[in-house]
Amino acid sequence: MNSLKVPKFKRLPRHVGIIPDGNRRWSTARGLPKHAGYKYGIAPGLELYRICHALGIEEMTFYGFTQDNTKRPAEQTRAFQRACVEAVEKLAEEDAELLVVGNTDSPLFPKELLPYTKRVKFGRGSMRVNFLVNYSWNWDLSYFYKNNNGQKGSNIVEHIASSEISRIDLIVRWGGRRRLSGFLPVQSIYSDFYVVDEMWPDFKPEHFFSALEWYQTQDVTLGG
Amino acid sequence: MNSLKVPKFKRLPRHVGIIPDGNRRWSTARGLPKHAGYKYGIAPGLELYRICHALGIEEMTFYGFTQDNTKRPAEQTRAFQRACVEAVEKLAEEDAELLVVGNTDSPLFPKELLPYTKRVKFGRGSMRVNFLVNYSWNWDLSYFYKNNNGQKGSNIVEHIASSEISRIDLIVRWGGRRRLSGFLPVQSIYSDFYVVDEMWPDFKPEHFFSALEWYQTQDVTLGG
Repeated sequence: MNSLKVPKFKRLPRHVGIIPDGNRRWSTARGLPKHAGYKYGIAPGLELYRICHALGIEEMTFYGFTQDNTKRPAEQTRAFQRACVEAVEKLAEEDAELLVVGNTDSPLFPKELLPYTKRVKFGRGSMRVNFLVNYSWNWDLSYFYKNNNGQKGSNIVEHIASSEISRIDLIVRWGGRRRLSGFLPVQSIYSDFYVVDEMWPDFKPEHFFSALEWYQTQDVTLGG
Repeated sequence: MNSLKVPKFKRLPRHVGIIPDGNRRWSTARGLPKHAGYKYGIAPGLELYRICHALGIEEMTFYGFTQDNTKRPAEQTRAFQRACVEAVEKLAEEDAELLVVGNTDSPLFPKELLPYTKRVKFGRGSMRVNFLVNYSWNWDLSYFYKNNNGQKGSNIVEHIASSEISRIDLIVRWGGRRRLSGFLPVQSIYSDFYVVDEMWPDFKPEHFFSALEWYQTQDVTLGG
């Protein structure tokens, strides 16, 4: 059982999206090469997963890396690919139901993660964890266009590549930038968006608790 | 000629998105019925258009109303429909190229705006102004699914209903909420997002100048 101590909140998001940005700026600020930061993002991710699990949050989605990101130098690409594989190895020892979503038709998708492109249970499988790996918003939204056999669809939501990932209530982004950078455009439509100025490797539980405190003061209108 | 005095900026967004939220909260705070606020949003819109024009910003997009919004009481729906028509009447006396984007297959789309669903020049037509009226993100993204004749597409960006509206660099939202509420999901993918706490009818030029000051400190990565 998870015995982590967490504060109480009046109203929690059902599904939280995480944009763990700032690894390269964190590295540069420490005089390290840019690619060095990614491995320091694994422990924060696991800690945040455990906090969400202890709070009883039903679903969380991590922004691993995107096809845009893979245009960076090969050393960086290898570093964040490796970090994603290691993160999944750590999560496999926990209690979660993992789904990896991303473009597997590309050599940049890490082969080790192919088994998780269908949902896989770890432990009791009591919390849904989605992990975007070699993801692209354009790939996601264009999926049906490219793969349908000429039939007319009706509603895009049922036909995107990430259709198994539900609507996101709260997105928290580390690293100070106030943008979505292609993070699940359909699921983010109505999401509240909270920005933490600290870089992701400097993650502290208090950052996330502040986001949740802010979230419970927001109304939910779903555009109405 | 536009002789409005505006500050100088080092780097301006090419395309600005405007979410003019808070009309109902503004009304309620003044003891007015909720629908009363919309007409007080027209003059701020015109003022902001003139500021953008004077700055030389190439394109701006206003969030008029959405199909989600029309689920509200009829009195409110009539009030924001009327405000949109009046805003266009005012803009017709300026220098702009207007495009109205929204679902015209519904009786909730104001008939008076049908001529503007193809771009129309006012004056020299030197600034592109887009106006979302009876818009819906799902309608926008599902457009090709519903209207294609069975052909396979390749890239969603070319086939959405709003495909004539370009990528947005900066989105400014009034009314304090930190969410996109369905505002052009494809064009917002890489947008920087700035929130003004004041309600839209309380618009002041300084709000927008603060957004532009902040914007010029941000880097442009387009997800890279």
